[in-house]
Amino acid sequence: MRRCDELGAITDEPGRITRTFASSGMRHANKLVGAWMRAAGLQVREDAAFNLIGRWNSPKRGAKTFLLGSHLDTVRDAGKYDGPLGVLTAIAAVQSLRARGVTLPFNLEIVGFSDEEGVRYQTAYLGSRAFTGTLTATDLARIKEKQIVKARRNHREFLGYAEVHIEQGPVLEKHNLPVGVVTAIAGQSRLRVEFHGVAGHAGTVPMRMRRDALAGAAEFILAVETLAKSKGGLVATVGNIGTAPGASNVIPGKAALTIDVRDQKDAVRLAAVKALRAKASAIAKKRGLKLIWTLVQQTAAVACDKALMRIFSKCVAQRRLEVLRLPSGAGHDGAAISTMCPVAMLFVRCKGGISHNPAESVKTSDAGVGVAVLADFVEDLAAFYKR
Amino acid sequence: MRRCDELGAITDEPGRITRTFASSGMRHANKLVGAWMRAAGLQVREDAAFNLIGRWNSPKRGAKTFLLGSHLDTVRDAGKYDGPLGVLTAIAAVQSLRARGVTLPFNLEIVGFSDEEGVRYQTAYLGSRAFTGTLTATDLARIKEKQIVKARRNHREFLGYAEVHIEQGPVLEKHNLPVGVVTAIAGQSRLRVEFHGVAGHAGTVPMRMRRDALAGAAEFILAVETLAKSKGGLVATVGNIGTAPGASNVIPGKAALTIDVRDQKDAVRLAAVKALRAKASAIAKKRGLKLIWTLVQQTAAVACDKALMRIFSKCVAQRRLEVLRLPSGAGHDGAAISTMCPVAMLFVRCKGGISHNPAESVKTSDAGVGVAVLADFVEDLAAFYKR
Repeated sequence: MRRCDELGAITDEPGRITRTFASSGMRHANKLVGAWMRAAGLQVREDAAFNLIGRWNSPKRGAKTFLLGSHLDTVRDAGKYDGPLGVLTAIAAVQSLRARGVTLPFNLEIVGFSDEEGVRYQTAYLGSRAFTGTLTATDLARIKEKQIVKARRNHREFLGYAEVHIEQGPVLEKHNLPVGVVTAIAGQSRLRVEFHGVAGHAGTVPMRMRRDALAGAAEFILAVETLAKSKGGLVATVGNIGTAPGASNVIPGKAALTIDVRDQKDAVRLAAVKALRAKASAIAKKRGLKLIWTLVQQTAAVACDKALMRIFSKCVAQRRLEVLRLPSGAGHDGAAISTMCPVAMLFVRCKGGISHNPAESVKTSDAGVGVAVLADFVEDLAAFYKR
Repeated sequence: MRRCDELGAITDEPGRITRTFASSGMRHANKLVGAWMRAAGLQVREDAAFNLIGRWNSPKRGAKTFLLGSHLDTVRDAGKYDGPLGVLTAIAAVQSLRARGVTLPFNLEIVGFSDEEGVRYQTAYLGSRAFTGTLTATDLARIKEKQIVKARRNHREFLGYAEVHIEQGPVLEKHNLPVGVVTAIAGQSRLRVEFHGVAGHAGTVPMRMRRDALAGAAEFILAVETLAKSKGGLVATVGNIGTAPGASNVIPGKAALTIDVRDQKDAVRLAAVKALRAKASAIAKKRGLKLIWTLVQQTAAVACDKALMRIFSKCVAQRRLEVLRLPSGAGHDGAAISTMCPVAMLFVRCKGGISHNPAESVKTSDAGVGVAVLADFVEDLAAFYKR
């Protein structure tokens, strides 16, 4: 926790925490975390994508490598834990394993990824996708640091990846649990929906002669909420809405809104999007509005590895804690790494589910559970991969 | 109609029609319309508030004065008829009466008010309120032309006021009628309503743990529509809405919207506002939101004079037209003049109910009905005031 504080003082913008890809703040953070890695007995290097890598070699010849990690970059005006907690938890776990004289049948690498938030180039996962070799031409056209493609690693080298991260949601807090085992990183559909009606004078057009775009949008927003509430883990959010002309004395001729739909099962998410489109069409038809429906972006869900999840679950249970399995609604480096090897994640409770905010808060005792569970997990992996 | 076109070419902004209070365009317009008034046999002057006044003196000694008029200023990028049609109709009516050798037992003044739209100083009715002496200290603090208070007239001088204006709504068009008799200028309540919930990550906060401000606002927008539809002439409009933080991947922590409520009966409007406030409170309570309810402005309804309405109705009926009585949802100079003497209004159909837009359109034959009905009205007034 002291290290989280110390790292939180390193920033591109004095007075708030901001560390973007390849910035001086991020490079400085790598130096500091690298020193902690060295103190834990790791061999430290920075790859071509500014990912910070601390390696613990196995005495076993030809051993493969297991990855632990998270990211060291942040959003603008960030908290201290989103990303760093995972890297520092891994260092602390390794420190305790080495202190106990544990040896591993695999190499262990802790990676502090250089870009998960994508703030600098409005991308995502530049660090972990350079690592897995899944950067696209579009990414490379956008960024100055073309050499990051050289960070690519050979997939066959790796056994798996485990990431500790704050939950960024309120579920663990609600269940009064310090940690939870992640089942999947949810897939996401982002949509833009426009209703077009007829603008008119707010005083002179009788109610029954109106084609009010905002009234249609309001009906649809409630339909989005109703549908999402009817399905277990599905979430759907209208985060932004605007009207045109937007004057208080003019009936809206146009209303445009965003929808964000997520679920750990792609089929559930895609069925929800289809149902919402049908609902929007029905509302538009009933009200004499025109509907414009645009899919902005979609990403598939990433399932966590069942065997790794079982090991995490066993490690949680042996601390006499209820094992709560929950999906991650937010994206993580694990989603990028899943193209390379099996992945697993452990969530640590954060106060009020708040993240991307200086108010991010984690209890010291919860962070302690995270370190202990991760250390047990790595030890259990030794047995798992020996079988 | 040719005069409407000619007047429409006089503007402060080349390429579109804009004539604001005391601008060079407005002064130029007064010169042109003043010439038409003179051609109709009127004595023309501009008062201290730039109102253009054309007077037809009665041969009767000590006669009082009846007013006809509308405004010559416009909104930005206006149409050709909102305002000017009423002034030019009055001139044409007087012209036809004088051509027929009619004499009147009262003086007649046609007024082209200098500011109804309030564009220049974000006020309203500067011209007609200078005329009636109802400018406030707030108005005077805001404007440069302090001398406009000198335009004040003696209320006892006046018998009544009649205004022809485009409907600015679709009701006459729907009923396939060229003109309609106005019952009242609706009162208006303008409100600002905020729902405050809890912002959160669109991916990580389960639906049942959300306090989504926009979902509450959407429920309220539908309640506004439902209430207004349930009462005959009541109209209620949510014209603008915004969310904070307004990101597509963040649950809205705040939603703020405007409401505009109008009815020709103040009791109906005030009861509606009260019911909407109760509804908003209930929604906020149910959803764990905080409600902030602000009355921005309210104006009382102005009833048209029943005797003058009857005369207008008789003049319409004798042209074998159905007499449609309808409220005005928009404000007019008549509302200001009503503090001084009885008022009446005649609406002329406009295409699609469109106003405040270059697409404003009036049929020549409808304008002709307006002129004929107004001329008949003035002639009938002669009999009415002789009684």
